[in-house]
Amino acid sequence: MKLIPDDFQKEINLRISNIRKKLSDQSVEAVLIGSSPNIYYTSGRFFRGYTLIPLTGDPLWFVIKPTDFSQQPSVDYIRKPEQIPDILREKGYPLPSKIALEFDDLSYSDICRLEKVFPESLFYNGSAILRQVREVKTPWEIEQMKEDGNHQVKVYSKVSDCYKPGMTDLELQIEIERELRLEGALGVLRVSGNLMEINMGSVISGDNADNSGPYEFTMTGSGVHPSLPVGADNHRILPGHTVMVDMNGTFNGYQTDMTRVWSLGTISPLAMKAHNCSIKILRILEKKAVPGIPVSELYNTALSIVKEEELEPYFMGHNNKVGFIGHGVGIQLNEAPVVNARSKELLEENMTIALEPKFVIPHTGAVGVENTYRVTASGLENLTIFPEDIRSLDL
Amino acid sequence: MKLIPDDFQKEINLRISNIRKKLSDQSVEAVLIGSSPNIYYTSGRFFRGYTLIPLTGDPLWFVIKPTDFSQQPSVDYIRKPEQIPDILREKGYPLPSKIALEFDDLSYSDICRLEKVFPESLFYNGSAILRQVREVKTPWEIEQMKEDGNHQVKVYSKVSDCYKPGMTDLELQIEIERELRLEGALGVLRVSGNLMEINMGSVISGDNADNSGPYEFTMTGSGVHPSLPVGADNHRILPGHTVMVDMNGTFNGYQTDMTRVWSLGTISPLAMKAHNCSIKILRILEKKAVPGIPVSELYNTALSIVKEEELEPYFMGHNNKVGFIGHGVGIQLNEAPVVNARSKELLEENMTIALEPKFVIPHTGAVGVENTYRVTASGLENLTIFPEDIRSLDL
Repeated sequence: MKLIPDDFQKEINLRISNIRKKLSDQSVEAVLIGSSPNIYYTSGRFFRGYTLIPLTGDPLWFVIKPTDFSQQPSVDYIRKPEQIPDILREKGYPLPSKIALEFDDLSYSDICRLEKVFPESLFYNGSAILRQVREVKTPWEIEQMKEDGNHQVKVYSKVSDCYKPGMTDLELQIEIERELRLEGALGVLRVSGNLMEINMGSVISGDNADNSGPYEFTMTGSGVHPSLPVGADNHRILPGHTVMVDMNGTFNGYQTDMTRVWSLGTISPLAMKAHNCSIKILRILEKKAVPGIPVSELYNTALSIVKEEELEPYFMGHNNKVGFIGHGVGIQLNEAPVVNARSKELLEENMTIALEPKFVIPHTGAVGVENTYRVTASGLENLTIFPEDIRSLDL
Repeated sequence: MKLIPDDFQKEINLRISNIRKKLSDQSVEAVLIGSSPNIYYTSGRFFRGYTLIPLTGDPLWFVIKPTDFSQQPSVDYIRKPEQIPDILREKGYPLPSKIALEFDDLSYSDICRLEKVFPESLFYNGSAILRQVREVKTPWEIEQMKEDGNHQVKVYSKVSDCYKPGMTDLELQIEIERELRLEGALGVLRVSGNLMEINMGSVISGDNADNSGPYEFTMTGSGVHPSLPVGADNHRILPGHTVMVDMNGTFNGYQTDMTRVWSLGTISPLAMKAHNCSIKILRILEKKAVPGIPVSELYNTALSIVKEEELEPYFMGHNNKVGFIGHGVGIQLNEAPVVNARSKELLEENMTIALEPKFVIPHTGAVGVENTYRVTASGLENLTIFPEDIRSLDL
């Protein structure tokens, strides 16, 4: 395994310092981390084991696997979490009396086991703390996401070439998956929540856009099998239909989320109008979304534009609607904040959010644009710059 | 959504009856299920919500999403689990005083929330119950897995055609992924445990076979990025090296697990000897593995053959070894039982297990064969029939 370079150690120190601020705000003495996204966030690589971040003193990495992890002085190899208290005593660390664990990310069995490791301690929800810290990205993280955006854009520029006449939505998706993988996509898309399952994204064509699924994705599609009812349903792409490409951009542990629409033949004026409305919403939100603005205001602004243009029946679904137009993006596809009417959060500089005002037009399909943005002092910086008009598959 | 056909309803009834036997054995009155593999197992499709299986009375499906789920009389649409007790009272069901929840499959937060829904109840680990029931397959499930095996074999017959001179392991894997998807692979591989992450399997070449990773896979490889240290590491496939293809066969909610080895040029006599030893182990275990035999005996038999042939230094890894030679397979890739020395389980008829006695030969790579089998009264039935010799990529 590669050792962590010095400049990356500074990056980790910055993250740990941000985590400590939140721990301190909540009078928690330490957080013990074991989920893959948070292990990666706090160490820069994924291992099986635990990261312990105390309020004071060096953070400790307890590594179960791999066993040739690194020669860092702060790594302790363990077989099981029950060894942690003895190691802390040996190192002169106090056993934390108030400790945060990842209640939302680890199983009930895992948390109960960890609680027994610290029988004298009180426990707090560390998932919430990590979620809050991770929603504001460091400059290093934003560079990663820009790199993802660049790769993703390169693949989107090949979508028309992937299409061959007579293809189904699924066949087109498979060729895009291949291009993503050849461009370096890791092939696994980390999502938050154990009920979110998807492979590398979705290609949704025609009326499949309005099928209702179990997952919290926009325009989920029905998939090809009841065990995994999400995405392309393997029907032939037909003239007059749109093809919404919402394929994932995970190239380096981070990701960008981006949607563009292609079409076959001429599509309805209503679909064109709705697509242009999506672009209009993005242009307005790009200026409006500055630090301090309530996240809910982004949603409400979008909705009022949609109502003005009398497109509400199609907004974020037709028969099956979702109640959000965006979400945080980073190590996981669906991070905080959720951009909906109920959000109590305020935008902060260097949050990264995907905005996806979309419409479902019956007998045509889904339209709309999704970009991943960074919140700056003067508005949104687009990390996924690519033409936004509906592009033709058959030209 | 498709309604459940009558003959499939019989299948679901059989599974529910098997679950009830285990509930009754443990004096539990009901199990409430919310994880995707167990929702699929108990309903034949995936939805967001809960299945309640009481010891007596019809099972109930509480569906949050999709909202157009079906017209089955036993489906109740809910917004949140807190509505469940009122619905039970309305239907004349007693509130279970002893209820099993999926402690290993749902998050701590999810389980704590469900425990509050039933404030008077005692709670048991439903994950263990479902794991036990699911390890013995019904005839219908075995048919699904045979179908998976047939698809997987078709794709493996194209591996040599996928190879082009100069390719890296990752490039070869990408072409195999595409063939799997075109053959109908769903693209998501359900694994058990929140620390298991992989896309559609792995292609491991040369010394990447001996890299140690955080995951509980055999021959995990180091991957191409520290955020996801698993699988192909994108090095050029070299003459004298083996290429181990362990790509997934999920086509219908079930799956088969299968490994075959290809090579470039001539590989070492030691690697050939070890590969033949793997095949010998499988032939012996295929006869030995009958209902009633301890699972651990399969492991111990394999190990004694390996020792006889003086191949122990290479068995299941060289510098980094794993302690199992097989595992249950079904809806999830890694089901019960685990075939290791510590197993206390006995084989039962219609268990489905993948056996993968593998070796890592320094400077050559991984060798060995993996098949998915059904346990029958007279031994193992192979669900993944395909030539087992090392095949050449360059012929």
